[in-house]
Amino acid sequence: MLAVYPGSYDPITNGHVDIIERGRKIFDRLIIAVLMNPAKQPLFTLEERIDVLRELYPPDTGIVVEAFDGLLIDFAATRKADVIVRGIRYVSDFEYEFQMALMNRRLDERIETVFMLPSESYSYVSSRLVKEIFQFGGSVSGLVPDCVERRLKSRVT
Amino acid sequence: MLAVYPGSYDPITNGHVDIIERGRKIFDRLIIAVLMNPAKQPLFTLEERIDVLRELYPPDTGIVVEAFDGLLIDFAATRKADVIVRGIRYVSDFEYEFQMALMNRRLDERIETVFMLPSESYSYVSSRLVKEIFQFGGSVSGLVPDCVERRLKSRVT
Amino acid sequence: MLAVYPGSYDPITNGHVDIIERGRKIFDRLIIAVLMNPAKQPLFTLEERIDVLRELYPPDTGIVVEAFDGLLIDFAATRKADVIVRGIRYVSDFEYEFQMALMNRRLDERIETVFMLPSESYSYVSSRLVKEIFQFGGSVSGLVPDCVERRLKSRVT
Amino acid sequence: MLAVYPGSYDPITNGHVDIIERGRKIFDRLIIAVLMNPAKQPLFTLEERIDVLRELYPPDTGIVVEAFDGLLIDFAATRKADVIVRGIRYVSDFEYEFQMALMNRRLDERIETVFMLPSESYSYVSSRLVKEIFQFGGSVSGLVPDCVERRLKSRVT
Amino acid sequence: MLAVYPGSYDPITNGHVDIIERGRKIFDRLIIAVLMNPAKQPLFTLEERIDVLRELYPPDTGIVVEAFDGLLIDFAATRKADVIVRGIRYVSDFEYEFQMALMNRRLDERIETVFMLPSESYSYVSSRLVKEIFQFGGSVSGLVPDCVERRLKSRVT
Amino acid sequence: MLAVYPGSYDPITNGHVDIIERGRKIFDRLIIAVLMNPAKQPLFTLEERIDVLRELYPPDTGIVVEAFDGLLIDFAATRKADVIVRGIRYVSDFEYEFQMALMNRRLDERIETVFMLPSESYSYVSSRLVKEIFQFGGSVSGLVPDCVERRLKSRVT
Repeated sequence: MLAVYPGSYDPITNGHVDIIERGRKIFDRLIIAVLMNPAKQPLFTLEERIDVLRELYPPDTGIVVEAFDGLLIDFAATRKADVIVRGIRYVSDFEYEFQMALMNRRLDERIETVFMLPSESYSYVSSRLVKEIFQFGGSVSGLVPDCVERRLKSRVT
Repeated sequence: MLAVYPGSYDPITNGHVDIIERGRKIFDRLIIAVLMNPAKQPLFTLEERIDVLRELYPPDTGIVVEAFDGLLIDFAATRKADVIVRGIRYVSDFEYEFQMALMNRRLDERIETVFMLPSESYSYVSSRLVKEIFQFGGSVSGLVPDCVERRLKSRVT
Repeated sequence: MLAVYPGSYDPITNGHVDIIERGRKIFDRLIIAVLMNPAKQPLFTLEERIDVLRELYPPDTGIVVEAFDGLLIDFAATRKADVIVRGIRYVSDFEYEFQMALMNRRLDERIETVFMLPSESYSYVSSRLVKEIFQFGGSVSGLVPDCVERRLKSRVT
Repeated sequence: MLAVYPGSYDPITNGHVDIIERGRKIFDRLIIAVLMNPAKQPLFTLEERIDVLRELYPPDTGIVVEAFDGLLIDFAATRKADVIVRGIRYVSDFEYEFQMALMNRRLDERIETVFMLPSESYSYVSSRLVKEIFQFGGSVSGLVPDCVERRLKSRVT
Repeated sequence: MLAVYPGSYDPITNGHVDIIERGRKIFDRLIIAVLMNPAKQPLFTLEERIDVLRELYPPDTGIVVEAFDGLLIDFAATRKADVIVRGIRYVSDFEYEFQMALMNRRLDERIETVFMLPSESYSYVSSRLVKEIFQFGGSVSGLVPDCVERRLKSRVT
Repeated sequence: MLAVYPGSYDPITNGHVDIIERGRKIFDRLIIAVLMNPAKQPLFTLEERIDVLRELYPPDTGIVVEAFDGLLIDFAATRKADVIVRGIRYVSDFEYEFQMALMNRRLDERIETVFMLPSESYSYVSSRLVKEIFQFGGSVSGLVPDCVERRLKSRVT
């Protein structure tokens, strides 16, 4: 089974890491699909986001990191993925994800969306909040992988 | 990967059938785990519920039907399952399922819960509603598999 | 247009009264359909509940009070109703009502369900809470019509 | 009864069409009220959106298409509407709509908001998603009326 | 400020303990108000529940443990409480609590309800789940205080 | 106990006033913390927003009005606040607030977030809606304090 786990990863948080580890145990192969152009101005460039992910998931982890643009379902179909993995934590997440999953199923019924829960320790961690805390000078330690924390810190100096 | 799909199946609806078919494509093996004693007085006995399921999923489908009692997570562990599959349709489903999944993870962290969406055609179908409609003389055609409809009808005569 | 407004009315609250008045302005004719046997042991008998409603809505109001049993959609079809009216206040109301409305549409596609909002003043008033408050000796003044309050008080003595 | 069904209709989807048909059966007259200046940059100009709607609902359908600007409740009052119709599919829809309906009631208590459910087949269809799919080259067939699909396609060439 | 923290405490969980500790820091005095007769058959008698709470919160903690029957708001008024404290974790909690708080405000406007969040570590812990796990032979270690765990275990033998 | 009640107050609504009055009865001292730079272009400048608040809450009310920038939790810590007060009305409010409160607790565990409910009369009032109504020429009377209404009107002339 090949699963795609899509996102902006701007930056990857420990909540993402948690879902990746859980997904890895269920699906033989996992593609982390990095959205090239998120709606909002990203903090990290696509290259930086991919660099971080490849540092965290080198080739021998069986996890592949790839950028994508356009419709997620088209990218997943090109890669012959069986499954799209999404983490959900909140009711509002859930409703948006529900709508996207039904639409993606309509666009390509061969690919199924499955939802997973991150650890409750990360229930309140999102890329948006991490960026906000960082930009206002707060500590993001424990919210993101160490290599992300280092990159964030190196920006300030 | 071995997945457990638990429920009371009193009776199995086309919403359950939809999730079973979707789950079957993702996981090599699937156990339909029938809760022996649901909280409320069941319409069908455990034997009847198991009969129906085995009629629908004969051995050559790679789907196993088993009864269980006690904690679902203990049953899943005994069977060496990797995954518990749950269908979600509503926000209220989601919150209850969220709570159960986190508790089950605490009780046995080796087994992951994944959530799947039934087709929107079955979003409003539940065993409880099917029973209510049947008991008030309404038609459940298209809401449950044919063999369930036949059994329901044979009850009235 | 003929609308049916169903409920247990055990007892009718000022929230129900609010919806009835709003519905009456939109639909020519309104049937208040009183569920004969609610799931739980009712506080008022069917006769008492119908008496109260007929006292509140005498024939010249253009509102008809009737008891029903079985499936609501069958009752509505027998009366040649065009519309089922439901009040919603909460997300949890909404999800249950959504499911019922889709099921009723499937059972008889000629009858549409429309949802209305009670005044925010009654957003927290329900028959269940009114009964609880009354049974523990609290005042239900302003939560139910005067004639209901009188009947409740006469019970105690 | 005169009902107003407001929206941006950028573009009209089959979910809108579904609500319009259901509303048309309940209310004698229906005005489709097209918001002149949606918050975001529209895909279709006001003229194009009105053209499409008038093509779909020519005068003999008893449905009137009009543009409006400013407060919806003021537009509805000018037209002497009795009712505002809104479709709801999700909890998040519901909460926003609830807030707007109570505010509109405060601004003009003569006009009531009623909520209707689109068919579950359209539960995941929104103008926003349709635009996204179209812009990324996906097929919107079955999600929008044919004349909208044609207009979208003619844009690309 | 005197706060009342009501519940069935059948049994007290670590989620309750968490809220009590947080409430204790904000309010000078805290009454843990134990509902005498919960709707369902309790696992522990009122005496046992009170014993456990007094063992956990001896007089020198400034926390008082009391049983109550009837309306919570009447009990709170008798004790001249300023505040009712409630923990919320889920949307469904929130809606029910919202309704109760508005009703209690109507019954006695001098007493305010404030809501607090337990640690995310206890977001999935409830008395009902603890009882279920215990009754099916699962471990409740870490979900309830040690003295509750001991009492549960002594029941089995 | 010192409580901080943060917001953009662009403009303050009667919903805010309601929470401030309720909060004032529970906490000895209250700081109204005005976010300097809200995400969107404010209608009132920071100076105007502070002026309005100081007119409404002169020093002898025991309420302090202060501007803040950066992380709320840092501001609260600098002021040695014990509590952050937030009003919640909707499920969507609740989920966002839940996430922020858990994050703030992580950033500084000494400061607790408590949630309060405004009167149901203000359940649908928000700064955003007030601005929208004002900008389209509707009346905001009863939605905001008189001094805000006067300032809004003086803008038009």
